[in-house]
Amino acid sequence: MSEKKYVRPLNFKTGRVEMNYGAGGKATAQLISDLFAEAFSNEYLLQGNDGADLPQCNGRLVMSTDSHVVTPLFFAGGDIGSLSVHGTVNDVAVCGAKPLYMSAGFILEEGFPLSDLKRIVESMANAAKEAGIYIVTGDTKVVEKGKGDGVYINTTGLGVIPNGISLSGAFCKPGDVVAVSGDIGDHGVAVMSERVNLGFETNVKSDTASLNRMTEALVKNVPSLRCMRDPTRGGLGNTLNEIAKQSGVGIEIREEDIPVKENTLAACEFLGLDPLYTANEGKLIAFCAEKDADKMLETMKADPLGKNAKLIGKCIEDEDHFVQMVTAFGGIRMVDWLTGEQLPRIC
Amino acid sequence: MSEKKYVRPLNFKTGRVEMNYGAGGKATAQLISDLFAEAFSNEYLLQGNDGADLPQCNGRLVMSTDSHVVTPLFFAGGDIGSLSVHGTVNDVAVCGAKPLYMSAGFILEEGFPLSDLKRIVESMANAAKEAGIYIVTGDTKVVEKGKGDGVYINTTGLGVIPNGISLSGAFCKPGDVVAVSGDIGDHGVAVMSERVNLGFETNVKSDTASLNRMTEALVKNVPSLRCMRDPTRGGLGNTLNEIAKQSGVGIEIREEDIPVKENTLAACEFLGLDPLYTANEGKLIAFCAEKDADKMLETMKADPLGKNAKLIGKCIEDEDHFVQMVTAFGGIRMVDWLTGEQLPRIC
Repeated sequence: MSEKKYVRPLNFKTGRVEMNYGAGGKATAQLISDLFAEAFSNEYLLQGNDGADLPQCNGRLVMSTDSHVVTPLFFAGGDIGSLSVHGTVNDVAVCGAKPLYMSAGFILEEGFPLSDLKRIVESMANAAKEAGIYIVTGDTKVVEKGKGDGVYINTTGLGVIPNGISLSGAFCKPGDVVAVSGDIGDHGVAVMSERVNLGFETNVKSDTASLNRMTEALVKNVPSLRCMRDPTRGGLGNTLNEIAKQSGVGIEIREEDIPVKENTLAACEFLGLDPLYTANEGKLIAFCAEKDADKMLETMKADPLGKNAKLIGKCIEDEDHFVQMVTAFGGIRMVDWLTGEQLPRIC
Repeated sequence: MSEKKYVRPLNFKTGRVEMNYGAGGKATAQLISDLFAEAFSNEYLLQGNDGADLPQCNGRLVMSTDSHVVTPLFFAGGDIGSLSVHGTVNDVAVCGAKPLYMSAGFILEEGFPLSDLKRIVESMANAAKEAGIYIVTGDTKVVEKGKGDGVYINTTGLGVIPNGISLSGAFCKPGDVVAVSGDIGDHGVAVMSERVNLGFETNVKSDTASLNRMTEALVKNVPSLRCMRDPTRGGLGNTLNEIAKQSGVGIEIREEDIPVKENTLAACEFLGLDPLYTANEGKLIAFCAEKDADKMLETMKADPLGKNAKLIGKCIEDEDHFVQMVTAFGGIRMVDWLTGEQLPRIC
């Protein structure tokens, strides 16, 4: 009796996800071995136990999780697969840690084309390889048609912090400066353009990318580094508000110094978006003492992903913890928390 | 300007999940602070950064992930909240590790009652407390009505393995014995009964529970412990096949020694289920050398969750790696891999 007798081979051309792929039996095992283990292959994943047995880490650990529900699944510059790796790598990296290991949990909708799933999984594998992180453990569930939307992916990342490093959104002080690593708003615009079939006209690509090399350099080069964040959902405006609240400071930014691509700005106007609240998936903001401002900026600029980095403002004393922007015309605009649903399912 | 001006307070009686709860703005922050941070409260979660900054761990690490899509969300003996904690605690624990930290990622469907969400989150919090694990980081996404099914929960667990301990499904040898920690099939029957409105008649409760105290005791007391597993999706039959394949052995079990409750057996017959392939969420199987068989059994029985533990069979030489069962009538039944979708969305 051959094992193969019991199952059809997976058809990555015209096949679709069936309910039994999630039932924990032979079909699940086949999907894991023929697709996931093949693409993500590493010694930890191949142990084949309920969890991955990983080496001891010398240093404090950082753990971060993100479920990805972006729609559409494929967009200019990336897809849900690469995004799910970049997003979690970045969440671990901005805490000052070196990302090492990642889990991947898939919720597949019955009927989802296996060709799309393969493309997504290979995109994850490439993104993980680029970032130098191992996908060490995973899980697959299948839900009935109409109870999901193609595929949702949870990734949870684990990293290790070098001894002596401690960063937090609560560490900023009046006088500290803030830099952004490049043009804002591209991810949100790329996804929204795709959603309204404007991809060709706007020509904006998602900035989705892993920032761990830039964060490692900042940790190394900037002695007074207080905090790093990737301004994803809610964009730059919301992230600055989070930090102002956590640190108990006000933040003043200068509109003319905030880098935005011209076509992103034009698309934002057309789509009714504010670039300040539009999602990024490959941008960093970082705070440090004024004395290290140039070091921070130069470190960002030295990274291929930070060429257009800019110092955009500073922390001030403000008991209301407001974020304010000096506009291009010299006025003051309040940059409040994002209250509505500017961009649902953007990541 | 008060922050509260911008948002209505969450209404946990009649409120429902809205799209903006997942947009990363003020509504997301409110859901996190009023519900998740309140229920899961611990020093790591309250850091409020993109990831949790955790102490150094002395020992190898174990990481495991599971997305939970069980339907219905509430069933006799548990709910998706407690299940999502137990499932991941157990996956870490059966690797021989002490579970320490957990992440929680929620995919909420627009319109889901906040009262149900609160009940689920509190159930998670209680389960985590009982197991002695901290929920240290989380994420919330919202999808449109009809793109989800109430709530899906991913949990990813992190644990530490005591020095000198190494377990794997690949370590079993001919002559080794296998024990199960109690009655099988209860979880699958409880969920399926609920689904077909038979809850009252079958009167079977899910066995969902954290097994980490039992696994710690086994690691401590059984020198030749080879491997532990929790037979969830696919049940005992499928899990034994996984281990037979990994270790390259055959496994022979005795039907008369496999503990099944009478009402579970009756419900299985009615529902067309085979208890051998029906999911468990609070049962353990463990393998050790024959000389430690009694130690293993006594250790299981000493735990409140293992009172009905039984030695059920042994590993044999078999180049086909078959699992076979000596039936109550003295015949031999092949226990093959689960091939179909016996129980979709059972966890």
